[in-house]
Amino acid sequence: MYETDFIAGSAELAMLLEVSATPKPGNVDRTHDFEDLTYEHFLGSAAGMFPVFRKAASEGNNIGDLILNAVQASATWQRAGNCHFGAILLLIPLCAAASRSSTIPQLRKNAVDIVRSTTSTDAVRFYKSFRSVNVRVQERHYLDINDPDSVRTIQKQQLTLFDIMEISSSNDTIAKEWIEGFPRIFHGAELFRQFDESGHNLNKSIVCLFLRLLSEEPDTLVAKKFGSRVAFQVSAKATHVLEHGNIEDFNEELIARRINPGTTADLVIGSLFVTLLGGYKF
Amino acid sequence: MYETDFIAGSAELAMLLEVSATPKPGNVDRTHDFEDLTYEHFLGSAAGMFPVFRKAASEGNNIGDLILNAVQASATWQRAGNCHFGAILLLIPLCAAASRSSTIPQLRKNAVDIVRSTTSTDAVRFYKSFRSVNVRVQERHYLDINDPDSVRTIQKQQLTLFDIMEISSSNDTIAKEWIEGFPRIFHGAELFRQFDESGHNLNKSIVCLFLRLLSEEPDTLVAKKFGSRVAFQVSAKATHVLEHGNIEDFNEELIARRINPGTTADLVIGSLFVTLLGGYKF
Repeated sequence: MYETDFIAGSAELAMLLEVSATPKPGNVDRTHDFEDLTYEHFLGSAAGMFPVFRKAASEGNNIGDLILNAVQASATWQRAGNCHFGAILLLIPLCAAASRSSTIPQLRKNAVDIVRSTTSTDAVRFYKSFRSVNVRVQERHYLDINDPDSVRTIQKQQLTLFDIMEISSSNDTIAKEWIEGFPRIFHGAELFRQFDESGHNLNKSIVCLFLRLLSEEPDTLVAKKFGSRVAFQVSAKATHVLEHGNIEDFNEELIARRINPGTTADLVIGSLFVTLLGGYKF
Repeated sequence: MYETDFIAGSAELAMLLEVSATPKPGNVDRTHDFEDLTYEHFLGSAAGMFPVFRKAASEGNNIGDLILNAVQASATWQRAGNCHFGAILLLIPLCAAASRSSTIPQLRKNAVDIVRSTTSTDAVRFYKSFRSVNVRVQERHYLDINDPDSVRTIQKQQLTLFDIMEISSSNDTIAKEWIEGFPRIFHGAELFRQFDESGHNLNKSIVCLFLRLLSEEPDTLVAKKFGSRVAFQVSAKATHVLEHGNIEDFNEELIARRINPGTTADLVIGSLFVTLLGGYKF
């Protein structure tokens, strides 16, 4: 079985490597801050969450509570709000699954079991607590977080956290990962391996992974903010950049238009977690 | 008392923030790699050591073993060798001290007690194990690590780890911190507070802290590699840069001459640890 600290460290390092990779068009990276959200906020957020990843890996149940714990721990040192929400939704079940696994295929199978075993209590905890913290990516309407009726609906219909993700999965890639068994994350880990083996350095492999995942599927955070047409255009441009390589222009354009493909960044974190857990060293 | 995970996370985040601060003349930072040692190696090293900092904070004895554990854990994901050795020597006793402390003055007092209570066993473990790992900064001759007689000398004379640091303290700032009660680290935390309160952003405050500590005392890693005259010149230039602000030229000059003031970077990590432990948020 993967060891608890190794699991938690893989989760944290995945976050550190993802935010450091540069240029990562439209997103915060080691050479690009937003006005109110800097590179250091991401470092602080990641450092704060190690104990929760560890808890997920050592206990592995109460996924709703663990997600809340991670959101709170993200604010241990940084005040910019939760900048890792999508990544938390992916990493908490993956950390819990890793503690019951010795191989990557087992990891995936166990992660599927874990999200399918979430309860209505997980859903309620997730919602109730959610409103008490400053989650940065408020655009994710699994159910409307600000609507008190959401919790009543969950309780009345005994919706599990998995059910809620299912409701959102049509327009949210993170939710879709839960429902479909994390296909993009494991596919991304395979892509990373290919980029790495092709001789790219670590930074370039991560940048290529980001572009490739973005090119393959529109970013749902971009879609929610700017509409699906813009999200499609951004993915088409990512394809073009992968083929022709003018990444700096692409980066500048997205930054100027404030288009940040944050969901794709979350997927990259998930893929890097699988990669590091699988024994990748650099 | 400071909480175990908070202590360990403060240690790790101190490392992350230090290596990220840019430009940090002559050293690896988020925009500058060495040929065989990249920014990512430092991230990987820091992420690997959380469990050992946690162990130091929860058990807090066997300092020699803990230092060895940290050196080994640094290599969990990265293969570039130990790039945090000086920082480990500072952070391990500080983490152990923090678990017995509720305030920063108590932290300092307890850290002094801890290093003074090290044993001959700590010294032997430190030495014996040392040779088995690739410690990057091999220039630190506490006693000659490659000389098997060192261990015999330690045993015969019942030298403690503190005694060994005392031997080295005339030409090694990290050893001097042990002997003198960590004056530069706590002074650095106070300097950081001043830079922060003067309105600098986090990155600039860390860069200023680095320059200030470098200006106040020649870097002993530079002195060991290039002689004390060069080390003095570098410190004099740091003073000049603080007053006149041409940091980019200074950075380029040190990089071109391969002069890396790594001991000063270690001190910055120690100061940032004290800062974060003391409740600093950003």
